[in-house]
Amino acid sequence: MTDTRRQLTLNLFIYPGGHHEAAWRYLAAEPERALDITYYQDLARKAEAAKLDAVFFADGPALPDKIRFGPRVRPEPITWLTAIAVATSRIGLIGTASTSYYEPYNLVRLFASLDHISGGRAGWNIVTTSAENAAFNFGQPAQQPHAERYQRAAEFVDVVSKLWDSWEDDALVIDKAAGIYADETRIHDIEHIGPHFRVKGALTVPRSPQGRPVYVQAGSSPAGRSFAARYAEAIFTAHQTIDSARAFYADVKAQAAALGRDPDHIRILPGISPFIASTEAEARQLQQEIDDLIQPAYSISQLRDFTGIDLTGYDLDAPFPQHLIDQHTTRGHTSRTQLIFDLVRSEGLTIRQLIRRLAGARGHYVVAGTPEQIADIIEAWGTSGAADGFNVMPPWLTGGFDRFAEHVVPILRQRGLFREDYTSTTLRGHFGLPRPDSQFATALRKSA
Amino acid sequence: MTDTRRQLTLNLFIYPGGHHEAAWRYLAAEPERALDITYYQDLARKAEAAKLDAVFFADGPALPDKIRFGPRVRPEPITWLTAIAVATSRIGLIGTASTSYYEPYNLVRLFASLDHISGGRAGWNIVTTSAENAAFNFGQPAQQPHAERYQRAAEFVDVVSKLWDSWEDDALVIDKAAGIYADETRIHDIEHIGPHFRVKGALTVPRSPQGRPVYVQAGSSPAGRSFAARYAEAIFTAHQTIDSARAFYADVKAQAAALGRDPDHIRILPGISPFIASTEAEARQLQQEIDDLIQPAYSISQLRDFTGIDLTGYDLDAPFPQHLIDQHTTRGHTSRTQLIFDLVRSEGLTIRQLIRRLAGARGHYVVAGTPEQIADIIEAWGTSGAADGFNVMPPWLTGGFDRFAEHVVPILRQRGLFREDYTSTTLRGHFGLPRPDSQFATALRKSA
Repeated sequence: MTDTRRQLTLNLFIYPGGHHEAAWRYLAAEPERALDITYYQDLARKAEAAKLDAVFFADGPALPDKIRFGPRVRPEPITWLTAIAVATSRIGLIGTASTSYYEPYNLVRLFASLDHISGGRAGWNIVTTSAENAAFNFGQPAQQPHAERYQRAAEFVDVVSKLWDSWEDDALVIDKAAGIYADETRIHDIEHIGPHFRVKGALTVPRSPQGRPVYVQAGSSPAGRSFAARYAEAIFTAHQTIDSARAFYADVKAQAAALGRDPDHIRILPGISPFIASTEAEARQLQQEIDDLIQPAYSISQLRDFTGIDLTGYDLDAPFPQHLIDQHTTRGHTSRTQLIFDLVRSEGLTIRQLIRRLAGARGHYVVAGTPEQIADIIEAWGTSGAADGFNVMPPWLTGGFDRFAEHVVPILRQRGLFREDYTSTTLRGHFGLPRPDSQFATALRKSA
Repeated sequence: MTDTRRQLTLNLFIYPGGHHEAAWRYLAAEPERALDITYYQDLARKAEAAKLDAVFFADGPALPDKIRFGPRVRPEPITWLTAIAVATSRIGLIGTASTSYYEPYNLVRLFASLDHISGGRAGWNIVTTSAENAAFNFGQPAQQPHAERYQRAAEFVDVVSKLWDSWEDDALVIDKAAGIYADETRIHDIEHIGPHFRVKGALTVPRSPQGRPVYVQAGSSPAGRSFAARYAEAIFTAHQTIDSARAFYADVKAQAAALGRDPDHIRILPGISPFIASTEAEARQLQQEIDDLIQPAYSISQLRDFTGIDLTGYDLDAPFPQHLIDQHTTRGHTSRTQLIFDLVRSEGLTIRQLIRRLAGARGHYVVAGTPEQIADIIEAWGTSGAADGFNVMPPWLTGGFDRFAEHVVPILRQRGLFREDYTSTTLRGHFGLPRPDSQFATALRKSA
């Protein structure tokens, strides 16, 4: 039994309209607000009122295919979170940005701003971006192979960590009379030279409240897990069963411990997409209602993006064609593809059944039930070594989150699993993570 | 005489502590707030209360030398302006970003966010970045030559214009019943292939309120002028005399007209740094007080950055050594270097006199006087073909701007030279600029 004195983490993963791919067609959805910043600020304020740890934004630097079928727009997360930062005061702000398509020096400046502006609430979801259409937006003829993307990512994290550390915490002097603003001996050119990057100077601003943004990671392939074990302070992961989540949890925490890290300094957060109603039957009916809005042409294109398998023209009500799985060679989304194939194999699904299973949250755990049932699941996963909390992915927004905040969060609170109020002003504080020292300050102390 | 029915443009150029290099040491300065976003939000609110057109932020992706001597920190402008956007409702938001060190696809997303979040108030100050220490932060062994930077800049502007145009204005359908979010025939992969960039896809979000941010430019070299005449909708420029400003104004507007552009669609805005007091003597005394806080070691390093000439060790009170000018070979900041040499030649300055002249606003026009005198200068320049308005660079902040807003702006208003209130909600509206059609929509109409 995992120690339960430490409370669960709950993030709100915001996706315009909701996470169910057809949610935007649901009566209460507001797809016309997908570019309206107040839609997102309102959601973040609700999440803050419920004392959640953070809001979370996915991203990729390309317009998704099939925009015809839904508001799959992608506002740039760091600017979006900056506008949310100004409208809130406590909630964490986690944004996704790609190590494959940013220059480290530009990215550090953006996140340093977010951390300064928010008073220490920034988190960076580190992704390598597998989508090929992103490569085409950056002059590349094809995406880089998986292993090479992770090699670049590791060096990228090394570079940006140095940059965020380049001003020691006590570098500022601000002595008007003496005319000294900063102690230059405590500001360090990083002098990084590596296979992917050469970066010489220090950051353009003093160190931010958290030192570095919280490092979040979402890859679950072997390379992704090993990267996460080394660098991640929170992990967003997809599991259909508690057993799968437990195996992942044990593996990543063990890998982290083997690297000399404290396993408590990694928060493992599966996605959960809950349909909530006062009876289980009503919750299932709600799910059915939204499932009925699914557009198979879109779902099949999504499945092709995840797995590389194109089911256009197949009978939706026939069993998923096993030979396509047998012939499949693994590509980018390896762990998600595996999850989908496991689903097909273990449950013998038809194509229509599979796309309904994936429509809810793209492979994340979808559940329909009463508030108590949802709370039971969260408790079961969160107290038995399957999760340190969850990334909550409401099927539709904003109503799907309202139900979670009003009915599930209070139960978790009664059970002593979730905070009554914030006890910290930073995301590191909410997550129970240490604030890293500047590596340059440490180096100086060691050599002194 | 230029048409005066069109009113003057006034921007507030924000620089932490103020534009005078020693202002942060002045009693009323608040250098400890240089990373406090509320300092900037407060200034922007004051500028908005005075009905100014925009706030303006400079930038370069490197920490300036000699940070010891003053708060020359550089918060990333787009995030900073996003936080300001949320705290204001009308004022324009102009941020500097470098075409040499950004990927076009990343930059368009950031400015599209700012324009969406602000409801159409974004402006982009397009710079090529001459500082060598920026190149070292992006893996380059040296800065690119001036001409090559401008070639890349021109293609960069071409690419980002296509991306900002990639969604036609009426691409959104949002029909829940039919399941159609967007009309894909009105969203265009840009398919750009050029010597510097290959970018295939469309932007990740619908077209922003202004279509494109306002294009601002600040280069005054021949290459800079020619670039500005082609692309700029506002130009930030440095002149020590009305004659120099008039020559520049006539040249750029003529070049624009020769390219088939409407010269009224370029706002030419010299910098002005005014010391304001109720008598001219008091204003001069104020200037003297702040000049007395100058640290020559810093000024000499600034001068070296501008001109490449290192005066360390020279007698500050001896005439500027003419042989150093004679031996000089032009580098990056060509137009600013020329301005400095002209100053030395025409006025026979000592080194100390020169650094005092430059300390105020790095070569921009510095003046001390009564509110009436300042207003007279602005009127003279702004109604005689020298300027369409000014980038106001208060010597110290926030007090230096308070005096301008409280005492100079009302005089300009009385004279019919400046708006009583906003008549538009966008920066394009404030500047009297048209909203560009999407080039793809135009192409379709032409071919129809």
